[in-house]
Parts: sequence; structure tokens; C-alpha cells
Amino acid sequence: MSAGQEIERKFLVTGELPDDLDQHPSEEISQGYLAVADDGTEVRVRARGDDYMLTVKSGPAHTRVEEEIEIDERRFESLWPLTAGRRIEKRRYLIPAGDQLSVELDVYAGELDGLVTAEIEFDSAAQAEAFEPPPWIGSDVTGDGGYSNQSLAAHGRPHG
Amino acid sequence: MSAGQEIERKFLVTGELPDDLDQHPSEEISQGYLAVADDGTEVRVRARGDDYMLTVKSGPAHTRVEEEIEIDERRFESLWPLTAGRRIEKRRYLIPAGDQLSVELDVYAGELDGLVTAEIEFDSAAQAEAFEPPPWIGSDVTGDGGYSNQSLAAHGRPHG
Repeated sequence: MSAGQEIERKFLVTGELPDDLDQHPSEEISQGYLAVADDGTEVRVRARGDDYMLTVKSGPAHTRVEEEIEIDERRFESLWPLTAGRRIEKRRYLIPAGDQLSVELDVYAGELDGLVTAEIEFDSAAQAEAFEPPPWIGSDVTGDGGYSNQSLAAHGRPHG
Repeated sequence: MSAGQEIERKFLVTGELPDDLDQHPSEEISQGYLAVADDGTEVRVRARGDDYMLTVKSGPAHTRVEEEIEIDERRFESLWPLTAGRRIEKRRYLIPAGDQLSVELDVYAGELDGLVTAEIEFDSAAQAEAFEPPPWIGSDVTGDGGYSNQSLAAHGRPHG
């Protein structure tokens, strides 16, 4: 692993959420897929607070491309209906977790109501190993494609 | 048919092209599909002369939505590789055809090399009926889905 590479881990949160959840900064995120091509090229729109974005991202068949295009609220509202059935809606909380880390706690709504995930980004492998998860963090789903945004939006929560 | 409704007709051009073709104004059009969803929602990029555009268009399942987002050349060049195998490249000539009409003559290149189509937009049904096609215009393919941009890009020229 090269120095400076980001290490991200993702967990399911199945226990009690922190009591003081609403004391932490948070924002609504609405993300919907306009279309996904057979080769994995995806086009999505996202509202995050007052920011609206259209993003085109290549699939595994291509050299990585990601273009984020800022759009205004009118355009977002016009495009959002086209994402019906291919959406993620969640509230993201930023919760400090020691060692200058913070957990992105995502509480899903809509079709994914009941799903809660936590993502943490580490600066190094050593930091990732030293990490002691808060008691409310559950099983590790890092790298589980079933919990990718695209899969959650298209197929809902993985079963089994 | 309501007054003011556009009437568009599309023809194949199978005979000799006009001798003076290169005397008419023309521009290169490169159009590629980033992704098309199962419900017909399509996202495409287009270069037309020096104009670059990303367009999102709804499919038949939705109330009609079409959003055109101007992009710069850098962004177009970044996204274009993602449209491989889903492209239309053509040169469009504007040719006067009497009665203040003009023909959009599209000479395709690349995978669709050899295909030539002509489109004419009329202001009224009366005008459409009175229209005498130039001798180089062939069979009428108006409304033939096989000659839509999306179909030509995905499946090539219709057979049979």
C-alpha cells in the first residue's frame, strides 16, 4: 500500500444509535440515478444541503473518469422525477471518533428506511488497525458491493 | 392537429447527392450516449461546431423532461470516451428547398458511413402536403424508430 493512500471502512450500525445524535452536524443527501449503462457508466444527480450536482462516472471497463457538474435547484427538481425507483435518501451525521477521525453515519430513509451505515476514512493502515469502533458500530461491510450507492439505489438493501 | 404544431419528416437519401453540396453551410455533429436507462431516460453528450452540450431526456414512461447543460470542451473530451460503441458522427448540411424551407441533410461517418438522411420541418400540414421533394430524396422513414439517434447509436443502421 503506497503512502498517502486513503483507507476507508464501512460498517453496518445495528445497535442503539448515540443518544446525542442530533447534537452533531448533519445534512440531508438525496441521490438518484438517471441512467446506468451496461458498461457501468453512471449518471446521477445529488442534492446535499443546498448543493446540487450532476455526476458522470465511468464503469470498470474504462479508464476512470468522474465529472461533477454543478446544477441549480430548478434543474435538480426537473431531473429528480426521472430517478424514481433508483434513489438513495439519507441523513448524514458527522460524529467525532477520536484520533482526529470522524464517522460519517448515514441514516437512510424512504425505501431504505431502517438501514444505518457508518464510514470512516483513515490516513494510514496503522491508524486503521488502531481504530477502536464505538460500541454502536456493527459488522464490517467494507468492499461489499451490495452496500454501494448504485446497488442500494437499484436493488435496495441486500438480503441474507 | 393544433395550429402551430411542428411537422417533421425524415427521408433516406439513396440517390446522388446535390453537386453543390459543399457550397452549403455545414457543421460536424458528434453525439454519444453516456447511458440509457431501462425506462428510456437517456444522457448524451454532443459536440456541434464549437458548442458542447450534455443533455438528459426522459423516456416514454415519464412526463417529458429535457435538460440541456452547456459544458466546456475539456469536459466533453473527458466524457466522450465513455460513449464508445454508442455514437453518431455526421456532417449536417443546410440546403434551401423552396417555400422558405430548408433541408437538414445528414451525411453519417464512422460506423454509420454510407447512411444519408434528410429532415425537413414544416409549419403546417398544408405546407407538408404541398412539399415537392428534390430528386435526390428517397424513401420516407418518418416515425421509423430504427432511424432515431438513440437507435442508430446503439444498434447501427436498420437492416432489411
